[in-house]
Amino acid sequence: MNSTSTPRVFNFSAGPAALPLPVLEQVQRDLVALPNVGMSILEISHRSSAFESILAQAEADMRALAGIPSNYRVLFLQGGASLQFSMVPMNLLSPGATADYLDSGSWAAKAIDEARKVGSVNVAGSTKSDKYVRIPAQADLTLTAGAAYVHMTANNTIEGTEWKDLPQVGDVPLVSDTSSDMFSRPLDVGRHALIYAGAQKNMGPAGLTVVIVRDDLLERSRARASVLPTMLNYAVHADNQSLYNTPPVVAVYVLGLVMKWLTTQGGLAGIEKANRRKAAKLYAEIDRTGFYRGTALADSRSMMNVTFRLPSEELEAKFVKESAAAGFDGLKGHRAVGGMRASIYNAFPEAGVDALVSFMSEFERRAG
Amino acid sequence: MNSTSTPRVFNFSAGPAALPLPVLEQVQRDLVALPNVGMSILEISHRSSAFESILAQAEADMRALAGIPSNYRVLFLQGGASLQFSMVPMNLLSPGATADYLDSGSWAAKAIDEARKVGSVNVAGSTKSDKYVRIPAQADLTLTAGAAYVHMTANNTIEGTEWKDLPQVGDVPLVSDTSSDMFSRPLDVGRHALIYAGAQKNMGPAGLTVVIVRDDLLERSRARASVLPTMLNYAVHADNQSLYNTPPVVAVYVLGLVMKWLTTQGGLAGIEKANRRKAAKLYAEIDRTGFYRGTALADSRSMMNVTFRLPSEELEAKFVKESAAAGFDGLKGHRAVGGMRASIYNAFPEAGVDALVSFMSEFERRAG
Repeated sequence: MNSTSTPRVFNFSAGPAALPLPVLEQVQRDLVALPNVGMSILEISHRSSAFESILAQAEADMRALAGIPSNYRVLFLQGGASLQFSMVPMNLLSPGATADYLDSGSWAAKAIDEARKVGSVNVAGSTKSDKYVRIPAQADLTLTAGAAYVHMTANNTIEGTEWKDLPQVGDVPLVSDTSSDMFSRPLDVGRHALIYAGAQKNMGPAGLTVVIVRDDLLERSRARASVLPTMLNYAVHADNQSLYNTPPVVAVYVLGLVMKWLTTQGGLAGIEKANRRKAAKLYAEIDRTGFYRGTALADSRSMMNVTFRLPSEELEAKFVKESAAAGFDGLKGHRAVGGMRASIYNAFPEAGVDALVSFMSEFERRAG
Repeated sequence: MNSTSTPRVFNFSAGPAALPLPVLEQVQRDLVALPNVGMSILEISHRSSAFESILAQAEADMRALAGIPSNYRVLFLQGGASLQFSMVPMNLLSPGATADYLDSGSWAAKAIDEARKVGSVNVAGSTKSDKYVRIPAQADLTLTAGAAYVHMTANNTIEGTEWKDLPQVGDVPLVSDTSSDMFSRPLDVGRHALIYAGAQKNMGPAGLTVVIVRDDLLERSRARASVLPTMLNYAVHADNQSLYNTPPVVAVYVLGLVMKWLTTQGGLAGIEKANRRKAAKLYAEIDRTGFYRGTALADSRSMMNVTFRLPSEELEAKFVKESAAAGFDGLKGHRAVGGMRASIYNAFPEAGVDALVSFMSEFERRAG
């Protein structure tokens, strides 16, 4: 089906990111006219029975894959995690209440900035003074009794760190930004009150945000309906099955295909195994001689975003240039950390990791 | 390239809506790997030079097509017109000021509801008591001197009416929701302060919102930056060239292709000619014998959404069923109006209008 002669490169981008090739091929095959529909997925009405089936199937597959309990709602929204930074406090942080935020990286800090515009925020743990090279320790958290919620960032895309275990927050609702590790490993939905993630790393193309929210949280949204913008009200989207207004149809469709692909990979347990193997290979190469240096502390290292530096900025610039020429795209690290970042989400092929490891060894040999 | 055997149907949906076949074919051809990029449009980073070119080209083509003056900014956002209903007052309606709203249809009324959550609203004209079968007359408008802005809905998708001329609002900034007639005819951008439109009718797939805003309006957003959610701040998106966070990449790409297609159709003057011809054929059939009855007053009839009824609800149900079986999709009217609605946006083929006219004549003959 791939009629273009352009070969595919290895896409190490932090997001939007690589999608499974079989998914892309199916999107391509049916692009002009979906079977038995006669219209493109780019054209069909969100009110059509064809799209209603696509939406329902995507949700059903996601529920089965992640074991989402029946008292949780799945919402398909727009605006990315950045809009969730505002929607979470606008819906869940009542006047007079305080929300606890765990400051584990640059995106967590952005979430804090937005929440402060809405209400009272307590930074209940931060590794900012350590330049976010590690995840806050449970013992260092200063949680507020009766907080409106605790907000965490499951994986820190820029700094390359991840929470290995969820923080203990007692009965306080736990809200997690899982944008960069969603469905990369099994997750215990029942320990969360709300989970949100932009789709464009592990779930689909850019332009779609998934929110998984426990039923009882929606009461807070309903209580604020007269002041909340309708489009920012979780309960409105829940009550309208994500069809209050036109959703990003093509992104929902591709997400649905990715859910099916994940199922063929052995579900979340299966994909975790593959992800662990891929990350272990890269970290092993980083640790092999000391030429490369991982920026995250070992016990906080991310399975999704592998950040590392070289002995000098000159060598880093050379590495960026030569790796790009060799067909590795998107390895330049975020300016906040410097160096390199290899984002190896679910759909990133293990062959690409192997190729990068070889390239790294060879680069070191030539530089040495 | 279209490998599926499913024939394409005529898509009369109110939106998402038909896209030009050559656009769909190009999306399909390059779906797995964009030429010279080696990644799918569904995967590429919004920070890549490839996407920056796509974004810049889409904007440049839009500017040329619509004659957008240089003191206007073009923003590519998410959330649809429904989110603009809130963003407009949140950015432009200062405490103590009043915004005038022209209530010409169901969507205009929704915009009013959202604005009332933000500040003081004056309904400066309404045809609600006439069930929105016509556009408010200039003589009936009760505009507020020194209003923050006047909000209008250029085309009323549900009721099938459109403003033939812009209202006279003096020096007050004119804000227009052009979701359902954007780029269907030449528009005088310079007479507006802000124009917004969901892309999914005339410009591209669902999941993308275009905002065209005059520079000086952004000062109001900047003045409110400490309280406005960052994602809802027009100035933030303008200052970041619509890349403050991840935009809906594939939708921007398709919009760009549609802009190029519009240029090949003779630009906005050329497409208006085709649209006038398509609408005239349908209205002529509606008016031919009195069997069909247009729901909008003649001087307010929309060129995009042609609404009509049949002599009885039984015949309407029969028409819906038989037209669908004959390959006409999406003709059932909105429940607020009843009857039929044929949405014939830019990309809807004239052959589809001709086929519907024949079907209507034949249906009338059999019913008579």
